[in-house]
Amino acid sequence: MKITFCCTDTRAEPWLQGLSAALPGADISVWQPGAPQADYAVVWAPPQRFIDEQSGLKALFNIGAGVDALLALRLPPAMRVVRLDDAGMAVQMAEYVSHALIRHFREFDGYEADTRAGRWSYRRPRLRQDFPVGIMGLGVLGERVARAVAQFDFPVRGWSRSPRQLDGVRCYSGQQGFNDFLAATRVLVNLLPLTPETRDIMNRETLSRLLPGAYVINVARGAHLVDEDLLALIESGHVAGATLDVFRTEPLPAGHPFWQHPHITVTPHTSARTLRGESIAQIARKMAALERGEPIAGVVDARRGY
Amino acid sequence: MKITFCCTDTRAEPWLQGLSAALPGADISVWQPGAPQADYAVVWAPPQRFIDEQSGLKALFNIGAGVDALLALRLPPAMRVVRLDDAGMAVQMAEYVSHALIRHFREFDGYEADTRAGRWSYRRPRLRQDFPVGIMGLGVLGERVARAVAQFDFPVRGWSRSPRQLDGVRCYSGQQGFNDFLAATRVLVNLLPLTPETRDIMNRETLSRLLPGAYVINVARGAHLVDEDLLALIESGHVAGATLDVFRTEPLPAGHPFWQHPHITVTPHTSARTLRGESIAQIARKMAALERGEPIAGVVDARRGY
Repeated sequence: MKITFCCTDTRAEPWLQGLSAALPGADISVWQPGAPQADYAVVWAPPQRFIDEQSGLKALFNIGAGVDALLALRLPPAMRVVRLDDAGMAVQMAEYVSHALIRHFREFDGYEADTRAGRWSYRRPRLRQDFPVGIMGLGVLGERVARAVAQFDFPVRGWSRSPRQLDGVRCYSGQQGFNDFLAATRVLVNLLPLTPETRDIMNRETLSRLLPGAYVINVARGAHLVDEDLLALIESGHVAGATLDVFRTEPLPAGHPFWQHPHITVTPHTSARTLRGESIAQIARKMAALERGEPIAGVVDARRGY
Repeated sequence: MKITFCCTDTRAEPWLQGLSAALPGADISVWQPGAPQADYAVVWAPPQRFIDEQSGLKALFNIGAGVDALLALRLPPAMRVVRLDDAGMAVQMAEYVSHALIRHFREFDGYEADTRAGRWSYRRPRLRQDFPVGIMGLGVLGERVARAVAQFDFPVRGWSRSPRQLDGVRCYSGQQGFNDFLAATRVLVNLLPLTPETRDIMNRETLSRLLPGAYVINVARGAHLVDEDLLALIESGHVAGATLDVFRTEPLPAGHPFWQHPHITVTPHTSARTLRGESIAQIARKMAALERGEPIAGVVDARRGY
């Protein structure tokens, strides 16, 4: 089995070593223009030329959960794209969202500012029933986040394209359920895949439907959010704050109003990092399954976009 | 049934209204020196004179989880002291500790400092198996915190005076188990009652036994921690940081080194606040049970101290 590795911004050596150890006998090397056709590829943000030259791949393994950048390339219609599912990312998402949610709800950012000013402060406790949390996207990550949030006794709502049922989560689906979902949500958590349908989904009109004093937690893609609409709604007071891990342009450009905004917390796309060991094990398992002709999870439906 | 109310730093009116609504027919009033003997008392930090005058009480209900201040008074040996159990505090503790733990583990404080400086930063992900969390005190609050922490897949250890068994928690007990517990812990969470045995329990000798790069989260009582020993161990690098909600003197005195320490987060005793509605319902339920001659939970063993 011949494997080619083409990952931008990634140190190749430990991946090659890990894959070799997990797949003894496989021939694994870093892609160079003009290299012979491989059976499988492990990629992150490959150039179009890579796709064009390696058009006979049996499968393309993306070392992340989101495949929007990959699907923006011209892919042969028959090319099978596989994304990581979980591989240690779900618990990281649960952590990130729980931390941001608790921080907003309990006003720990406010307490820390008081402490920096040397003030021993009192803030009236808020009621968790006034903080329903709404999760957009109920895949592996969304479901894990919902479970973590429910554990702290917040009311939890979920929204997905097709109907879902999750214990302890009031589920909404489809276009007709979206407005009801928003109206029942105060803390909006975005875990959607980025597709033409979900691009710009958090905009002035949709964010205005959230309960007053809303919070926005975006851990999916920057292009889900219309930046200036969020800023306008924070300005108006309808949205109280946001925690943003992803941006239209990354790194977030110098001078962008998000950087120093008093009600916006910015993190550098760190909510759920690809963990090499877990990812290599998952990819190796899936390649071996494909070789045996067995089905695997995480195959992307290019038309649906995830 | 005659109830007297004697709570320092607490607005009496809503408590009286709530207790009256929950216990129709009861005669409830705010204690004044010289008032006639009541059947039950609802107290927070009452003066010694209150105890001396009301020595015939059937039970004294403390509106908090910790009774150390109350037990420091001279109480008639037969006086039954009842503390709140849970009443909405356990989930708050789970939130507070989860937020502090995730913040330390994921270095979100560091990321926020980077953001304030306009830096899009990279930090190497840490492994959760390198962050075993050790919880001292496995009562209602400690058990709830352990469950929350385990949910994020951290290794969890627990230590208590008498042996306990908890799913997913490696439990240690007694004096002989204490050093093993410390040696297996990197993030130390203190939820112990304050008693003569636990006073100063976090000191140079015990904190030195924690795994290197340790964190301390104190949500119990300030007198559990020897302040200068924590500062020395942070200085030496053995302890990496601390989140402290309680202090030997509260409010934390101006000029105390904890206020502006770069590795210490200070909050103003807000980890688990008494929620009036839930507390009133619990106290009313327990008074009614005592009137019927039934046993109740939360009766303090004065000799043990909690």
